[in-house]
This record gives sequence, structure tokens and C-alpha cells, in this order.
Amino acid sequence: MAAAMAPATPLCLKPYAALRYLSLYTKPNPYPNLLRYSPKGLAKPLIFPPFFHRPVPFSGSALAVNRRRLFCTIVAGALQSGEAAEKTKPEFANKPRGEMGEKIGEFRKKLKIADIKGEPDEGLGRVGQTLVVMGWVRTLRVQSSITFIEVNDGSCLSNMQCVVDSDAEGYDQVEAGSVATGASIWVQGIVVASQGSKQKVELKVKKIVVVGKSDPSYPIQKKRVSREFLRTKAHLRPRTNTFGAVARVRNALAFATHKFFQEHGFVWVSSPIVTASDCEGAGEQFCVTTLIPSSGEAVGSPLDAIPKTKDGLIDWSQDFFGKPAFLTVSGQLNAETYATALSDVYTFGPTFRAENSNTSRHLAEFWMIEPELAFADLNDDMACATAYLQYVVRYILENCKEDMDFFNTWIEKGIIDRLSDVAEKDFVQMTYTDAVELLLRAKKKFEFPVKWGCDLQSEHERYITEEAFGGCPVIIRDYPKEIKAFYMRQNDDGRTVAAMDMLVPRVGELIGGSQREERLEILEARLDDFELNKDSYWWYLDLRRYGSVPHAGFGLGFERLVQFATGMDNIRDAIPFPRTPGSAEF
Amino acid sequence: MAAAMAPATPLCLKPYAALRYLSLYTKPNPYPNLLRYSPKGLAKPLIFPPFFHRPVPFSGSALAVNRRRLFCTIVAGALQSGEAAEKTKPEFANKPRGEMGEKIGEFRKKLKIADIKGEPDEGLGRVGQTLVVMGWVRTLRVQSSITFIEVNDGSCLSNMQCVVDSDAEGYDQVEAGSVATGASIWVQGIVVASQGSKQKVELKVKKIVVVGKSDPSYPIQKKRVSREFLRTKAHLRPRTNTFGAVARVRNALAFATHKFFQEHGFVWVSSPIVTASDCEGAGEQFCVTTLIPSSGEAVGSPLDAIPKTKDGLIDWSQDFFGKPAFLTVSGQLNAETYATALSDVYTFGPTFRAENSNTSRHLAEFWMIEPELAFADLNDDMACATAYLQYVVRYILENCKEDMDFFNTWIEKGIIDRLSDVAEKDFVQMTYTDAVELLLRAKKKFEFPVKWGCDLQSEHERYITEEAFGGCPVIIRDYPKEIKAFYMRQNDDGRTVAAMDMLVPRVGELIGGSQREERLEILEARLDDFELNKDSYWWYLDLRRYGSVPHAGFGLGFERLVQFATGMDNIRDAIPFPRTPGSAEF
Repeated sequence: MAAAMAPATPLCLKPYAALRYLSLYTKPNPYPNLLRYSPKGLAKPLIFPPFFHRPVPFSGSALAVNRRRLFCTIVAGALQSGEAAEKTKPEFANKPRGEMGEKIGEFRKKLKIADIKGEPDEGLGRVGQTLVVMGWVRTLRVQSSITFIEVNDGSCLSNMQCVVDSDAEGYDQVEAGSVATGASIWVQGIVVASQGSKQKVELKVKKIVVVGKSDPSYPIQKKRVSREFLRTKAHLRPRTNTFGAVARVRNALAFATHKFFQEHGFVWVSSPIVTASDCEGAGEQFCVTTLIPSSGEAVGSPLDAIPKTKDGLIDWSQDFFGKPAFLTVSGQLNAETYATALSDVYTFGPTFRAENSNTSRHLAEFWMIEPELAFADLNDDMACATAYLQYVVRYILENCKEDMDFFNTWIEKGIIDRLSDVAEKDFVQMTYTDAVELLLRAKKKFEFPVKWGCDLQSEHERYITEEAFGGCPVIIRDYPKEIKAFYMRQNDDGRTVAAMDMLVPRVGELIGGSQREERLEILEARLDDFELNKDSYWWYLDLRRYGSVPHAGFGLGFERLVQFATGMDNIRDAIPFPRTPGSAEF
Repeated sequence: MAAAMAPATPLCLKPYAALRYLSLYTKPNPYPNLLRYSPKGLAKPLIFPPFFHRPVPFSGSALAVNRRRLFCTIVAGALQSGEAAEKTKPEFANKPRGEMGEKIGEFRKKLKIADIKGEPDEGLGRVGQTLVVMGWVRTLRVQSSITFIEVNDGSCLSNMQCVVDSDAEGYDQVEAGSVATGASIWVQGIVVASQGSKQKVELKVKKIVVVGKSDPSYPIQKKRVSREFLRTKAHLRPRTNTFGAVARVRNALAFATHKFFQEHGFVWVSSPIVTASDCEGAGEQFCVTTLIPSSGEAVGSPLDAIPKTKDGLIDWSQDFFGKPAFLTVSGQLNAETYATALSDVYTFGPTFRAENSNTSRHLAEFWMIEPELAFADLNDDMACATAYLQYVVRYILENCKEDMDFFNTWIEKGIIDRLSDVAEKDFVQMTYTDAVELLLRAKKKFEFPVKWGCDLQSEHERYITEEAFGGCPVIIRDYPKEIKAFYMRQNDDGRTVAAMDMLVPRVGELIGGSQREERLEILEARLDDFELNKDSYWWYLDLRRYGSVPHAGFGLGFERLVQFATGMDNIRDAIPFPRTPGSAEF
């Protein structure tokens, strides 16, 4: 029985753990399929490989499969026998349980290339250390007697340059061509100072193992491939420099978002995705239904399988939610319910638009951040939006230096300066009325003429932020009430509402927010103005019936922020798997 | 022009800001609607109110509306004129922009009740300070000469006890009954040591203002209301002790989740919500479509408005995505694509099941956390799941003490001990085969008989974790391959796969994970076994064609975690707006 139970210490494939197994080998192993246990398992690391004693020739996929199985099971087997003698009884439960149950191993942070390259001395302090690096081959340069392999593990933009000569174990795999672009490898070597100018350190390889070969059809070879093409390979594009960097910066922006709001006492609230509440109104919605057969059966589904009433109408009572349900376009109204209980909240989740906009600025599915502040007005709202944007921009400038340098060089020259300005300098605010006057006074000729009451077009927004204010974010506030949503608070002038849009260079409107109408009578009158059904809004109106407070919030499209922070032109390249008209692959 | 531009310093309603305005009043204001500017605006705070000089009688809703408008605009007006003299030119852009554009005010953390009560001395260090508290009235106790008002702002469970006597400004509102349960109030007073045993400090009120009255129909009065009833008031239930505490602990669990993975070098990846990729298979899916008219028009939509082909089939080519699309049931397959590029990633987003399960354990929409580790096996996976769970449990025990005490007292006695055990003690792992033997040997009679090959039922899981192992989380691993998903890695015995389920007391299965099949040939064979269409999985199989690596991951239902951490019985009470069969309100 006990033999069937594997202890769970982290096994193969972790550098430190690997080093531990290495100590088992002080002489050739007579049982190539079974590693031997040494009671001094934790002795000093040697440089033998964890999973093979002798290089195994690598050729053909059948063998590759066999080899890859060995990769895990041999080490696991070794550790099982190896740890058998050390077995300790779990200490908690006093219940009898005989021989059953083993404790779980410790979870340790893996050593990654970022841990080496990200050190202040860029790894020089590790010279002389024996390390294991695991990742994917980016490029391979074969010179007369040595081969340079660039390995990337996605933890940072930098590759680890691995220098292999014919003395290295596993060199035959290099010779056989198995170490190709896209292949995954396990490399053990000694950190040495690099002769090259591109890096401070490199790995002098003692042992190399191909973990997974790369078929020659690998679509992301060294030659540059277009971003359009890469969208058709969304499952492989994070292996490129650009999309790896976008993924890391996107991650940093998301975490900085949470940090900012948590540090200011905001509570994250998950607003619902599916809603049968008929009170959003903003834009076209996707219908969510189970009346149509699901998944595999859907293609070829006859229309008359959909339940209908006597009158030939869709019989919603038979649908999952008992009535029509849709994908949310905003979590704001829900967030307001929590803000008027917990004071300050924010949402961060997906939202949807079923608009047929096949542009580089629109997604059918995108992530939104929607903070909502109670006991707050539009000025608090603008101050919050500004502080938030500056915080997250500062965060990536400080924490994603290498990726930002990459964007600065290859994607948008000057982006670091632009973002540094945003992080450090004051934002500008002006009223819509002043903005209109500014545009009327401008010497520039606009395609869409400006007059008070019209919505500002992209060309107007760009003129204001890029030309009039020299590339600085500008908040326009107090818009005409006719062009804004019903829930925005009416200003005393009777003509405008306490709305604000933050415009940034290149992206245009990044943030839209408002103070919400907290006065029941006025809100009801606004619903009437918009010919919206008050009954649908019963719960939203309740917030004004019971302890209403001035409150305000804003929404920020997360992918627009990613574009703003990386310089990526097309919003489809700012999200892992973009959804657009005609496209929901992967 | 300049007069129309409001500077954006945080205005009314913030304690510190409020105190600042107070300094404007050193004698009665002769212009009750217009606050006067003092050039020494930042002088020492006095205790006059920010928005009214003289108490305004509060009666009737028309007045209330007027009053609430004053609440913001008067102060804003005051500050506009007040700051006019201090106006500073934004320094950045060198572009000419005349008089237009003002800088945005500073965003400051609001003082909340948690900031006072959460101090180590529970606020005693603030005795003598004049503070402003804003929140909602929980209860009101009127004694002969003084009134005790319990105010809650949602920042913590504790209320601020406010003691009002007839000398306080605004006392007439107390007398008039405007300060009722559910009303929102603004209170200014001096922190004094409390006579009561329930708190260290209370606020001796100098000034009270009703911000928003509460209609007598307010459904959450002091008397206890059932959780079933509160589900029908999901917009108001966060104002109760229980749901406020759930929201805060849920928030803390979410943030701890991000912290844990970020600290270990994982990259957050947003997996797609809508997918036309026909390769999930796990459970019933919701269809997402625009063939049915959206939102308001949906009710009463004729069936024959749906486009159909000549053969009477639904014409998917006219749908938004050009083919049937569904809500995701898991982001795992997508996460694998990023893990095999960035090494370690995690998703945290909503997922969906269209199963008609009207139970206390199922939601149609729930949040999932799905980490995926490259160069990792099942042991790494179990170690990660264990470390994760212990981390987030420790986080809430340390950061949500007051809320956890509440759950310990009112929701599940002993929950703190149970969670402390989880945080500190070793988890147990055992194979499925051993688990079956354990169950066969058990003296307990089960409703569902056990034999090797059967899925473990809830009664079996509970026996193992609650009885056999005395309340400790248990991981069962190496399940028969027939009862697990196609992507799980086949073990060498040919009968089992490297899957694991973590069972916890009360909740049952909290985490399910596996090592993924990284061998192309075996994965293809498994797809055949399950009669799945290999062409649909082209991109998933690509990960095995190009640099395949051993990798593993797990999924955790976030609402189950919230239940586990709070003791809430019904999963509908663990998410703000639950979606279940027949219900998608709010």
C-alpha cells in the first residue's frame, strides 16, 4: 500500500529540486530506468542530470514520447524510493488511519530567467553557480565549435544565452537538430560572465535535454511575422517578444489596479455578467439562452426546435432564467448598490458590446474597471481617476523596465517619456463649454464642425489633448445632458450633467465617469425623459429611497489602458484572445 | 471664462477637506447660499459645518431634494471662489492655451470608521480629535436626554456610536425622526472614550446632517430578516452585518489570490468568456447570440424573425460570430497556451454552467481561479494548491479579524479554529486506490456502495476529510482514467490519470486539478477514446507539437472558497448577485 503513495515534494524540473537529485549520482547508475536512493540525498549538488545518466539518442517521435514519459516518471520513481525511509507521519488528526495519507510537499518559487537577469547586477553575482534553466528555444547560432542557444521562459523579455560545446552532455541532440526554434529544453550549466555586449552573464552548458521537440512547421520562426498573422496564432503569439511583453505589462497593470484600490480602502465587487435586468440601455447586447441546443449539437439545429408560444413568439418562460437574459454592458449600476453600503468599491471584470464595429478600437468582449465612490462628487471622481492612472503608469515604469524599453524601441518611440509625463505632471480639466470654445477658436479645420451640444469627435479630442495641451491628459467635464446617460447628475444650470471624460493622446477617451443623480425625483424625471421604464429600475431607485448619498464613479476599458501603456495600435493585440465580429476562435 | 472652471481639489464630504472649509467660518455667514473665501483657508479647523451655516429644518421630500442639492453645490461654489485666488497655472505643456484648463485636485484616502476602530488602541489615540463620520444609520436608541446613533460606513463591521444631545446642531432632525434606520448621515464630533463595553471610543456629536432620509418602507430594519428574504433584496443586503462581512472577506480572498500568484511570478491571463471553440465538453453551455433581438425588444420576439437556411436550420452565418458561440465553462485550455509561453500563469474570471441544478452548491455564473504551471508535474500542482489555500486562509485570518470573529460567533462556531488548522498543518494526500480501500474498510454504511472505478460521492468525500482525517484537507490523486477528462495525463499503470481533487470539510471538493497530457500521440488517442473531434483541438494539440512541456494546473471555484472561509451555507450568499435557474435579477 505505502508504495503506491507518492510523496509530494516538488519533483523534477525545478532547479533546486533538480540539484537535489543530482547528488544521487556519484558514479554511473547501473539501472538506467531506476534511480537509486541515497540516504544523504541532500548532499552537495553535482552536475549530473536528474533524469538520465547517459545521454539517450534522440530520434523519431515514438522515442520522443517514451523519453518524455521517462522525464517525469523516472525521477518520481526515484524520489518515491528515495523518500521512503524519510517518511514522516502527518501530525494533525489523531484519528487512526493506518498507513494511509502522506503530507504534501513544499511549494517553492521556481528560479526563472527574470530572477537572474532582473538582479541589479544582471546576474553577475551568480557567476560560478550551477543553475538549471528551462524554457523555449528562441534562436540558435551554430559556430564552428560552439553553439549559442537563446532560451526564453517568458518570465522576462531577455533570453538566457546558453553556450554549448561538444563536451556538453546531450550535445548529440544539438547535432541531430533537435534543438530547434520553438523546442523546449532543460539546460544545466555554470553562470559565467558573457563576452557579448547584449548580456552580462551567460550559461556555459554542462548538460542539455530536449524536453519537447518543435515540428519544422513551427509558425513563429526568426523572421518577422505580421501581427495580423499572429492573430491567427493567438495560442502561440505569447512566445514572441512583443506579445510576451504585452502579457507581462497587462498583468502588471491589472495587479497595480488592485493594489491602488485596496490601498485606498476600496472593496472589489464582482458585478454580474449575465443579467435579465432590463436597465442597461447602453449599446447592443448579446442574448444568453439555453433555448438553442448547446455546444456540439448547435450546428444544424432546426429553428422549430426552439419553444414557442401559441402566437409564434419565443417562449422565454422555458429559457434558463425564465426570461430574456443578456451579457452585461457595464457593472456600474450594480456597483452603486455596493458603494451605498461599503462606501468605496470597484469592479474589474469582462463586459460586452454586440456592436458590429470591426475597427482597431473595438472589442465585443473587453475588461472594465469601474470604481464607485460614496460621499463623493465629480471633483473627487476626477481626482480618483487621475491618481489611479498615475499610479498604474508609475507602477509599470518601475516594475516593467525591460518591457517598456522594448516598447519604446520597437513599438512607439518616446512612449516612456510620454508615460513619465503622465505619471508626474498635473492633468488638466476644463468644462465642455470651454472645450467647445477652444475648438471654435482653433485654427484647425475639423471634418465635423463643432457647436455646443454636439458630441466631441475623435478629431476634436485628439486636437485638445495632443495639440492644445501638448500631449497631456485632459478631463472634459459638465457635458450637455442630452448627450449623456440618464443616471448622471444634473448640474444647477439645468443644461449640463456632472459627467467627465478623460482624454489621453493616441487613445482618445480612456476614462468616462460622472457623479450619479442621487435625488429620487430628478432621477425619475430623467428616466421619463429617456422613455425608460421606471419599474425595471426599482432596485436602482431604492438606493435613492433609502439613505441616498452623493456618489460618483468612472469606467475604464482595460484594453485601452493596455494600448495606452504599450503603444500597441490595435486593441486586438492588447487582449489574449480577442472577440470581434465573425471571430471567437480559441 | 475662468469662473466657469471649477478647480478639482477634493471637495465636501471628506473629513479632512471638510475641516478645511470649516476654517472659513469664524462668524455667522451672511450669505447662506454662498460660502465666503478666506485667504487663510488652511487655518486651524473649527467645528462649523461645511454646507450649512444654520440648521435648515428638514421636512418633506421636496425640501429634501433641495437640501441634497445644496449639499454638493454650495460647498463646490465656495471652493470655486475660495480657490480662485490660489489658482496656479498647470506647469507642463508649453503650448499656449490662454486661460483654459485647471489642474485636478489631489486624491486622498478618506477617513473611514475602519481607520479609527482598526487602530491597535481601537481609536483611543484619537480622543479629543474632531472628526467627521459619514455612513448609514444602523440603529437608534433614544434616551431621556441623549440619543445613541450607530453609524456604519461599510469599511468594517463596527459601527461608530454617535452620542447626540439637544445641544448638537441639527438635533431637530433627530427630533423630527429624520435620523432613522437606513438614512445616510454626516456627523461631526469629538472622539471621546466610551462608557459602553462594546467599544473603546465614541463620537460626541457637535453637528449632524441627514444626507438622505430613509423611507419607512426600508426593508432591513433591526429585526432579523432571513437570508432567503435578503436574496430578494440583493441591492440592499450588503448593508447588513452578514453580507457586509461576506463582501469584505470575499474582497480579501480575491486580493490575497492575486498577491500569492504575483509573489510567485505567475502572470494573470484573462481567458475568453465567449468562445466559438468547440472544445470544452465539460457540462452544458449557454449560447451567446445576436440572432434574437436584444434587450428591450426581446420580449415578444417572433420565432420566425430568427434567420434560417433553406432547410429550416438556424442560419449561424448571420450570427455575430458567424457560428454558434457559448459562454466558457473553463479557461484552462486557454491558460495552457500562455503557460507554455510564460511558464506560470493564472486566470481569475467568471465561468458558466447551464445545468439546471437548483441547489445550495451550484451557480450558473461563478468565478474561477485556474493556475497553470509549466515544467511541473502533479506533485508541484498539489504543492501549489496547498500553499495557495494556506496563504489566502492566513491572509483573511490576519486581515479580517473582526469579520472572522463575527462568522465564528454567528455563522459557524469554531470556523477560526478550523481555518487556523488549515493554515498551519500539513495536508494529506492519498491515491484514489487507497481512498477506495479506506472507504471499503470503513465501518460506516454508505448510501452509494464503493468500488474501484466509481466516482466518489459527497458522502465518501465527507467521510474521508471529516472523519478519517479529522477535519483536515485531503487530496485524492490518480483517479481511474474513465471518470476524468481527456486532457489529464495518463499514468504508467495505464489505468489511472494524474488528477487530483482537494477535499475540505463542509464544502467537499474545493479544488480539482491535474497534470496535463503533454504527449501528442497519447493525447490524440485520448480524444479518440472520448469521441472528440481532433480538428476542433488543433490549437490545443499545437502546444504538444511545438516545444511541449510537462505542465499541470488546477481550478478553484471562488464562491466555494468564500463559503469555506465564511461558513455561509448557501453559495447564493457568497456572491453579490447570484444567477441560478429562473433567476438573473438585478
